Amino acid sequence: MIDRLMSHAAASTDAFNFDLDGDTLREECGVFGIFGHPEASAIVALGLHALQHRGQEAAGIVSFDGSVFHSERRPGLVGDSFSDGDTIARLKGRAAIGHVRYSTTGGTILRNVQPLFAELASGGLAVAHNGNLTNALSIRRDLVRDGAITQSTSDTEVILHLAARSRKPRIIERFIDALQAIQGAYAIVALTNKKLIGARDPLGIRPLVLGELDGRYMLASETCALDIIGARFVRDIENGEIVVISEEGIESIRFADAVPMRPCIFEYIYFARPDSVVNGKSVYGVRKAIGRELAREAAVTADIVVPVPDSGVPAALGFSQETGIPFEMGIIRNHYVGRTFIQPTQSVRELGVRMKHSANRAAIEGKSIVLVDDSLVRGTTSVKIVRMMREAGAAEVHFRIASPPITYPDFYGIDTPEREKLLAATHDLEAMRKYIGADSLAFLSIPGLYRAMGEEARNAACPQYTDHCFTGDYPTGLTDLSIAGPKRFAMLAEAD
Amino acid sequence: MIDRLMSHAAASTDAFNFDLDGDTLREECGVFGIFGHPEASAIVALGLHALQHRGQEAAGIVSFDGSVFHSERRPGLVGDSFSDGDTIARLKGRAAIGHVRYSTTGGTILRNVQPLFAELASGGLAVAHNGNLTNALSIRRDLVRDGAITQSTSDTEVILHLAARSRKPRIIERFIDALQAIQGAYAIVALTNKKLIGARDPLGIRPLVLGELDGRYMLASETCALDIIGARFVRDIENGEIVVISEEGIESIRFADAVPMRPCIFEYIYFARPDSVVNGKSVYGVRKAIGRELAREAAVTADIVVPVPDSGVPAALGFSQETGIPFEMGIIRNHYVGRTFIQPTQSVRELGVRMKHSANRAAIEGKSIVLVDDSLVRGTTSVKIVRMMREAGAAEVHFRIASPPITYPDFYGIDTPEREKLLAATHDLEAMRKYIGADSLAFLSIPGLYRAMGEEARNAACPQYTDHCFTGDYPTGLTDLSIAGPKRFAMLAEAD
Amino acid sequence: MIDRLMSHAAASTDAFNFDLDGDTLREECGVFGIFGHPEASAIVALGLHALQHRGQEAAGIVSFDGSVFHSERRPGLVGDSFSDGDTIARLKGRAAIGHVRYSTTGGTILRNVQPLFAELASGGLAVAHNGNLTNALSIRRDLVRDGAITQSTSDTEVILHLAARSRKPRIIERFIDALQAIQGAYAIVALTNKKLIGARDPLGIRPLVLGELDGRYMLASETCALDIIGARFVRDIENGEIVVISEEGIESIRFADAVPMRPCIFEYIYFARPDSVVNGKSVYGVRKAIGRELAREAAVTADIVVPVPDSGVPAALGFSQETGIPFEMGIIRNHYVGRTFIQPTQSVRELGVRMKHSANRAAIEGKSIVLVDDSLVRGTTSVKIVRMMREAGAAEVHFRIASPPITYPDFYGIDTPEREKLLAATHDLEAMRKYIGADSLAFLSIPGLYRAMGEEARNAACPQYTDHCFTGDYPTGLTDLSIAGPKRFAMLAEAD
Amino acid sequence: MIDRLMSHAAASTDAFNFDLDGDTLREECGVFGIFGHPEASAIVALGLHALQHRGQEAAGIVSFDGSVFHSERRPGLVGDSFSDGDTIARLKGRAAIGHVRYSTTGGTILRNVQPLFAELASGGLAVAHNGNLTNALSIRRDLVRDGAITQSTSDTEVILHLAARSRKPRIIERFIDALQAIQGAYAIVALTNKKLIGARDPLGIRPLVLGELDGRYMLASETCALDIIGARFVRDIENGEIVVISEEGIESIRFADAVPMRPCIFEYIYFARPDSVVNGKSVYGVRKAIGRELAREAAVTADIVVPVPDSGVPAALGFSQETGIPFEMGIIRNHYVGRTFIQPTQSVRELGVRMKHSANRAAIEGKSIVLVDDSLVRGTTSVKIVRMMREAGAAEVHFRIASPPITYPDFYGIDTPEREKLLAATHDLEAMRKYIGADSLAFLSIPGLYRAMGEEARNAACPQYTDHCFTGDYPTGLTDLSIAGPKRFAMLAEAD
Repeated sequence: MIDRLMSHAAASTDAFNFDLDGDTLREECGVFGIFGHPEASAIVALGLHALQHRGQEAAGIVSFDGSVFHSERRPGLVGDSFSDGDTIARLKGRAAIGHVRYSTTGGTILRNVQPLFAELASGGLAVAHNGNLTNALSIRRDLVRDGAITQSTSDTEVILHLAARSRKPRIIERFIDALQAIQGAYAIVALTNKKLIGARDPLGIRPLVLGELDGRYMLASETCALDIIGARFVRDIENGEIVVISEEGIESIRFADAVPMRPCIFEYIYFARPDSVVNGKSVYGVRKAIGRELAREAAVTADIVVPVPDSGVPAALGFSQETGIPFEMGIIRNHYVGRTFIQPTQSVRELGVRMKHSANRAAIEGKSIVLVDDSLVRGTTSVKIVRMMREAGAAEVHFRIASPPITYPDFYGIDTPEREKLLAATHDLEAMRKYIGADSLAFLSIPGLYRAMGEEARNAACPQYTDHCFTGDYPTGLTDLSIAGPKRFAMLAEAD
Repeated sequence: MIDRLMSHAAASTDAFNFDLDGDTLREECGVFGIFGHPEASAIVALGLHALQHRGQEAAGIVSFDGSVFHSERRPGLVGDSFSDGDTIARLKGRAAIGHVRYSTTGGTILRNVQPLFAELASGGLAVAHNGNLTNALSIRRDLVRDGAITQSTSDTEVILHLAARSRKPRIIERFIDALQAIQGAYAIVALTNKKLIGARDPLGIRPLVLGELDGRYMLASETCALDIIGARFVRDIENGEIVVISEEGIESIRFADAVPMRPCIFEYIYFARPDSVVNGKSVYGVRKAIGRELAREAAVTADIVVPVPDSGVPAALGFSQETGIPFEMGIIRNHYVGRTFIQPTQSVRELGVRMKHSANRAAIEGKSIVLVDDSLVRGTTSVKIVRMMREAGAAEVHFRIASPPITYPDFYGIDTPEREKLLAATHDLEAMRKYIGADSLAFLSIPGLYRAMGEEARNAACPQYTDHCFTGDYPTGLTDLSIAGPKRFAMLAEAD
Repeated sequence: MIDRLMSHAAASTDAFNFDLDGDTLREECGVFGIFGHPEASAIVALGLHALQHRGQEAAGIVSFDGSVFHSERRPGLVGDSFSDGDTIARLKGRAAIGHVRYSTTGGTILRNVQPLFAELASGGLAVAHNGNLTNALSIRRDLVRDGAITQSTSDTEVILHLAARSRKPRIIERFIDALQAIQGAYAIVALTNKKLIGARDPLGIRPLVLGELDGRYMLASETCALDIIGARFVRDIENGEIVVISEEGIESIRFADAVPMRPCIFEYIYFARPDSVVNGKSVYGVRKAIGRELAREAAVTADIVVPVPDSGVPAALGFSQETGIPFEMGIIRNHYVGRTFIQPTQSVRELGVRMKHSANRAAIEGKSIVLVDDSLVRGTTSVKIVRMMREAGAAEVHFRIASPPITYPDFYGIDTPEREKLLAATHDLEAMRKYIGADSLAFLSIPGLYRAMGEEARNAACPQYTDHCFTGDYPTGLTDLSIAGPKRFAMLAEAD
Repeated sequence: MIDRLMSHAAASTDAFNFDLDGDTLREECGVFGIFGHPEASAIVALGLHALQHRGQEAAGIVSFDGSVFHSERRPGLVGDSFSDGDTIARLKGRAAIGHVRYSTTGGTILRNVQPLFAELASGGLAVAHNGNLTNALSIRRDLVRDGAITQSTSDTEVILHLAARSRKPRIIERFIDALQAIQGAYAIVALTNKKLIGARDPLGIRPLVLGELDGRYMLASETCALDIIGARFVRDIENGEIVVISEEGIESIRFADAVPMRPCIFEYIYFARPDSVVNGKSVYGVRKAIGRELAREAAVTADIVVPVPDSGVPAALGFSQETGIPFEMGIIRNHYVGRTFIQPTQSVRELGVRMKHSANRAAIEGKSIVLVDDSLVRGTTSVKIVRMMREAGAAEVHFRIASPPITYPDFYGIDTPEREKLLAATHDLEAMRKYIGADSLAFLSIPGLYRAMGEEARNAACPQYTDHCFTGDYPTGLTDLSIAGPKRFAMLAEAD
């Protein structure tokens, strides 16, 4: 039997949550690393700021100054924690990595803060991870049985333990040993006393790119983190590839057999920033193409096209350009409530929506509108948006969703609710339309989605992307699913 | 000789700054008040949240519970300070007023926090004020000479002193005595132990509206603060009008001669929220009309129209719709840096811009673009935006400003830099174009601005709006100008 | 009618309490000031630290640097707030005054923080005050009727208003005008842009001494604040005297008729620090003499004398030396709960006592003990101490109180409970003994107290000290008593 | 090579210091545990408050509620961190353990916070430890070589790893395996999901007692922690004994061969609270006996005996009673600077002394005094105390130290300076007298110390106490000494 420790958070105290059963074992995150720069930690802070949309709960940076590793890990936004000169000054050194984590349910608990650090016999190792391992619980049980002491519930810690227990002499070999034992999705940046390391899982599910600025290499989850500092995009890290950056330059190692990449399609639909280029495709371009496909598949006569800001804007522009129906900012977003403001309970969420969006009555009144949103998860937000449009005088509300129906949970780092809470998993189209209160409702089709990605069609035998949330076609084994059960194994806040 | 007291701020301590010479005597603000509602302070908090764009430095609420006034005044955003149940629970009572203030340069000093409160012989009086008095320094000197003790540098405090010293028996009469002694721009909400009071200066420079929800009246700077709680817009408070809301209902008193209203035109151009209706006109509608006028006045051949988000979006849409040039989100805004992030120094501001906006290269590369921004103040932001567009591969950059050149400072509650720092006050059009680095530059004309407002032309004898920032035609006396000098009398951060 | 404003405290915000009816209008405090020292504010911080026993709620310092006054006022202990170099560095200047306030009921509210500051027409004036005015409410009502705005409930603020409204041209004259209008007990230090001022009320009820260090003068509530920095005691400020310290040296002004001094006898019994010399008499010496008188008046056969630490120690030593009964530390005090730990409710206070004192069983078991405490207020602490002694095995417990029975409240700056809560005001000696559970109980007599002070007898016509808590013989008018009623006019925490 | 991670502390963040070379690897601490009480964590908080003198840097509590462990670990005093109801309410369960740590040099870093927790294959285990292991570094290196990841530099963590790696099935057996591998001094309380465990090292160097309240057992470092809640002292835990408290009652296991106990004599001299009974002897009684022995060994003609408060008080009383020289409180301690106020540098320490003690001039002036202090470490404090006595007018100052000269550092949990900083290790008696500036100086002899302990003489073959600081006779192996070197292996702040 394994007991659990709950460490309660408090102002000016540390707090860890060892709750194995918690609903936040999985998270979407962002990572960044740089090697050889005199202001390494300042660069990492800027990179993390550009990746802030990937995680608002907490941020952390570890640097190495030639003899000592320095670490700062804090709750809240990068700008709040890492904008003062003192903090950056403490993070000495010419190499550093950083991490941002997803927002939790409002608590101040520092769960599984990253980057994690361990002293191995071969030297220090700091690791930051975006993704989710699907056999971490199994490995963790074995480790505990074998006398390991685990300090977090993070699947990332498993990587440290596996590297620590490897019998290989060199730290890179130990790291590869660890990667070969794990299953799931991961984009990792790691720092040793000599090297900056990047690694992407065998299918390349989560993104990771290589950049360069004045001859120094850096790694980032998205290209927007290169743009903020004016760095040059070099290339995507490949699936199953490790890159090792050191004073000797850059080295590439394959730790997994070469198979076609199968990146997560949800990065394009919702998660990545529109100005990022993910796996060679502009996110903004894909979203506009989705809008055009959606217009072709589900045209409607209307006066204006209105996006649900901000993630619905590009698809709405594509819809408008394809149909010629004028694009109008019919919903105004309050800038002082960001994505951060995700609330734990359904009831608080209702208040949240009213605080976040408001109808631009002057643009809407008396109009028949096409409302475009990026995705539909539980549907509770959509209900309120449609109602708000009607209260502002909309004559008709036609809802268009810029993705296919979500019918399966994610296990690779995106929090999704349990299956029974996914509206599309339990309702047919007409039932969803009624629930939402729209005059019409349409989703993008799977073929339409692949067309928007520039593919002729989905390759059923070997899909070009992992689209498991829409198809249930999971690309990796799900070892822990039998240990933890689906409820504990997957859940997340609505993607609004 | 008058000495000065500097109270230094610190965590968990009070701190007032009595610096008469400070550069932040003037601020843009937002006010809200409600009478007769069982959850008065919660409603005020929501109203202030909707008005957050009018001031991010600090927020305050004063309520009256039938026997005692309660007050909470805090630095930071409304959502951070007034979202917890405990705070709202302490603000007991069925009547409450609130205030948001503009962001300062990053300090934690609570300057002149509002609402202010005083006990008069006729009872308690709390006052919150948006605007700026142009004879407050003069009155203040007289008050000190006469034995008054002033606790803040706020011009608002002058109103309290004048009301306290009035020999009239009733509190409303005292309040009118005070208003008749002051000069400048003001939209005021005040609370006594019996009444909620609203007042707007004799020209109606700053906005103030009356709303109603379930039979209870409320006052707000903008209609968006009514919308957030689903309240009904009743009417604008008139220039020179006091409304008194009590258990007996609503009463209107004129305290100044009836003259044509002359509201500040800058509310439409930049300050008010696009979904607000100010003095009967949709802000979004005005901005789109400005974009269309700008397109007619300064057309250009280009591939795409790109707004500087977010305030340039409506004008860019108007420009796009008038010209048929496609609208594209060519600049992406980082949501985690709001308007709040205004930095004190020019050099930090340069960093700020890079943290706030990024180029959407996929949409821009190789394109000839029309860049639309709401206004041009110092021009430093514009320089960086144009450079960013070119670095992202724009073939041509045509800059269009959705307002006339700003050549005079404001003295009515909008921080503006000293005149010599206003780019348009010291450069001609071609010099500005060169400075900014655009291929072409054009501003909206004054006649175009009035056309966008729905007027045939500006009435030079009696202008329909106060447009002093563009014309130098100040609508009121500027008594303190001779005391303080223009430098101290007017300055503010760039309106980006 | 006068309304009231309650400002609720919160982390990192200011908070004032305007509650006129509150039970904390009166407080015991300490003051310190220095003129002409290059590290004036550091010296004041050390002086306040030595006076910390006079008030633990909050501390404040105001300095003047030749052109600007600087102010820091904070909740908590001097060592917590004023030990860092940054804070002291901000308090620039060669002249400074400071203030410590009594502990409140655990809240973080900054009530009536001192020193207070006002700009008069004749220049700035900062004031810190120990004592209590007995006509402040009356004056305050007149001021409000005359249009003054008051920001605190502090009686000290009344002094500022009176000085501001004086028609005299010089600031010292204005200050004297103010003093001549007020009634009660006060030791004041004040700071102008030229002078450090000290004043003591016409009877010299509260203490104030003049010290000197390297030719610079300073003022302090007690001599222990001179000792901490190695300063020389010069003399007591006289009753009805103002001293004015400036670059020109030191000047003495009498603002009240010369009458015999009548200082508060309670400073010797409980309040002052034992190493202080108050009005020429060693506090430690007086307390030991009290113990000897008590031994003569109320001898008893016992094995050991045990003080209630720490205030009972000198009297217990005197008792032991007079009787020859060995002195033993039979009660150990937990140093981590100081006087600070005064709790608001009777029930919490019971817990407090157990956390503060513990029996030294090895010294007590089987012994007949004489327990010596400084005073008896409500008696609740005594009950618990006696019970603790018996539980530790004491054979007999003889309680000896080193002061006469307290039967009247104080109105001069010492919080005392309402009369009905004073045990001696409602119980006779035998009833008190039973309530406390002692084998015998005795108080010092009034004649004994005067003998311990070195007097032959109390001069009933013109008492040498004010002993109103024991006799009800109040030395000044009590104007506000009829306004506020005795309940609101006097109350304080038990002197334990 | 082993790298090091420095985690920097900050408000509202976690922070660990992995600095192996730090000067704070060793600390004096206090522990407390209770089993089967409905308010277990509240009882632990009170117990820790009574043990606060054993550590003021940080405090922590872990409770078990039948299914989950709860943890709170915070910097600062118990009363500050664990006095609010919310914190205690979160620490649910009927079993809990707690820990207080020594004060550090003023930083806010949470070093090696305790209790530590680990999930073993056999269940959860929380451990709190007072003492110091003398082979922890050696074990730690082996663990890292074998793939263990260590999260703190705490020697306590070594115990967790050893228990985790034990192959024994039951958690108690694993715990015993761990204890049998370690060397040094320890009093441990541990908590599993079924049991409260107490253990004392094979020589019983650090104290640990068993108490009982209403049938529930508890463990504490000192009896004063039983007294605060009115619990009954049952017995000392024996050297080499484990006690296991569960629903089945209490069980005793010996994990080490029976040898005579050899407790640390320094607990009596300085560290334990005077009202505690340690290993059957009253600390107060021992200290008084020491004073009497000292009087016999080093009598002097003088007017008064003055203790250095507070730790010198009992010995001064013994000296006074033995000699008949009157005892006087000639030095007054400022209660607002406790032992907490230990400063990092010698220079700050000089300021500290002046802030902590002041001369009671009235008692001292013109007198020949015997000054009694508990011990002499570096001597810097003594220099200042003697000087302060002379400045207050003492005619003669005879210094008497209530312990033998300290000539060796401690390695068992008491911070001592490096040997070269111990005054007695580098100066002979006359040189010390001169350095301190006293008229005469005398220490207690080793035989005198043993007589005061009630022994006829020190048993050189098998000393009744470990007195290594005076004799260099270390009772255990010092394995790490060769790894770390003596500098890093032992140091601490002066015991004042």
